[in-house]
Amino acid sequence: MNPTVDLLCAHRSIRRFTDEPIPDEHVRTAVAAGQMASTSSAVQAYCCIRVRDPESRAQLAELAGPQEKVARAPAFFLICGDTRRHRLICDRAGQTYDQKLEAFLVSVIDASLFAQNMVVAFESMGYGICYIGGIRNNLPAVKRILEIPEGVYPLFGLCVGKPAETPVRRPRLPIDAVLFEERYCDDDAVTSIDAYDAQYRDYLASRGAEPRSWSESIAHRMTHASRLNLGDFYRSQGAVLD
Amino acid sequence: MNPTVDLLCAHRSIRRFTDEPIPDEHVRTAVAAGQMASTSSAVQAYCCIRVRDPESRAQLAELAGPQEKVARAPAFFLICGDTRRHRLICDRAGQTYDQKLEAFLVSVIDASLFAQNMVVAFESMGYGICYIGGIRNNLPAVKRILEIPEGVYPLFGLCVGKPAETPVRRPRLPIDAVLFEERYCDDDAVTSIDAYDAQYRDYLASRGAEPRSWSESIAHRMTHASRLNLGDFYRSQGAVLD
Repeated sequence: MNPTVDLLCAHRSIRRFTDEPIPDEHVRTAVAAGQMASTSSAVQAYCCIRVRDPESRAQLAELAGPQEKVARAPAFFLICGDTRRHRLICDRAGQTYDQKLEAFLVSVIDASLFAQNMVVAFESMGYGICYIGGIRNNLPAVKRILEIPEGVYPLFGLCVGKPAETPVRRPRLPIDAVLFEERYCDDDAVTSIDAYDAQYRDYLASRGAEPRSWSESIAHRMTHASRLNLGDFYRSQGAVLD
Repeated sequence: MNPTVDLLCAHRSIRRFTDEPIPDEHVRTAVAAGQMASTSSAVQAYCCIRVRDPESRAQLAELAGPQEKVARAPAFFLICGDTRRHRLICDRAGQTYDQKLEAFLVSVIDASLFAQNMVVAFESMGYGICYIGGIRNNLPAVKRILEIPEGVYPLFGLCVGKPAETPVRRPRLPIDAVLFEERYCDDDAVTSIDAYDAQYRDYLASRGAEPRSWSESIAHRMTHASRLNLGDFYRSQGAVLD
């Protein structure tokens, strides 16, 4: 179609990186591109923290899995929803910050749009990336290690570096499973994915992972609640989830 | 830097569109590019609904503001977090879907990464876009109009079309306000934005809007809670927010 669409469609998460360092200039280019993503009414409710210190990286790698790549990737960022500046501005104006779930939701959406633009920018410069949801395993520890204050909501990590592997494409659901016309339609939401289930099993086998269908993976995952204390943590950071 | 970074940095939200229709092939290319964004453990917790029906579009435009562009843009999509397929898969397996805030959060992040890739793909094909948070003004009505079932969380809309305007760039916060090293630092979070406040006031004036600094805009917005029933709505759709 065009080089940018080709780039987006060529995405694979990269879990092994070369040791080649990332020039600060490339990091700043990617973050600046992230900032140009849309943001709800320009609130820019996000930030990212680049962590270089080996001891912090080792602690984050441990609590995220352990996931060795969090310690070893040439760059690691923590991406946060951030309402702190908004709160400080209200304080300075002698007014009371007063928000509900909307503000938390906006911070999660804003931070995700920002991060995805960063990712596309990094990939366009020849880097590979992997999002790290595992930092949500232990957010109180993340808060302590990176000195996260009230109003800031750590959401996920991001590993970046030059790829040292060329993984095969992880197959996605058929497009008509996620693109509806006029109204929501799940008439064949489950029955239509038999072919995808088989594709997904083959994909896992090709990676040397336990071959399971996508449905089996989902049923396993969704019948076991995980990360049980997220609500308490984000509330303790000042989020209102109602 | 490179054409993709240039494209990301050239983003402006587009609010007026030509009447030129968007070929279905371009929509499918953008959605397929969206699907290649990272997704937490491949759960793909999102969907989008393309709304063409003029009556539905008029109703959505009304509740979103009113915002005429929601009725008139060549294409309008509703972007949703989607856990419905996961629930149906658990049902089929005779097991109980059991998730907490983590699943809602993953659906919001997944849907946002998906949408931002769609946006970058559309922009690379010469289209302009505008995210529509205004659909959160009245989610029960959105649910009724588009027949949104349990397990699906409408998050925002997306207008797409060929631009009929060339807006100036909306200035963003200084990069060092959102990129931290090693730990969170807000030592000069508020005082460092005086220059940005002036820039932002000039930007609003250049658009013919009421000239306010960014701090004034934020203080005004953040001291008035909005969209007060989001928590109730998402819970009624089956989300657990704890």
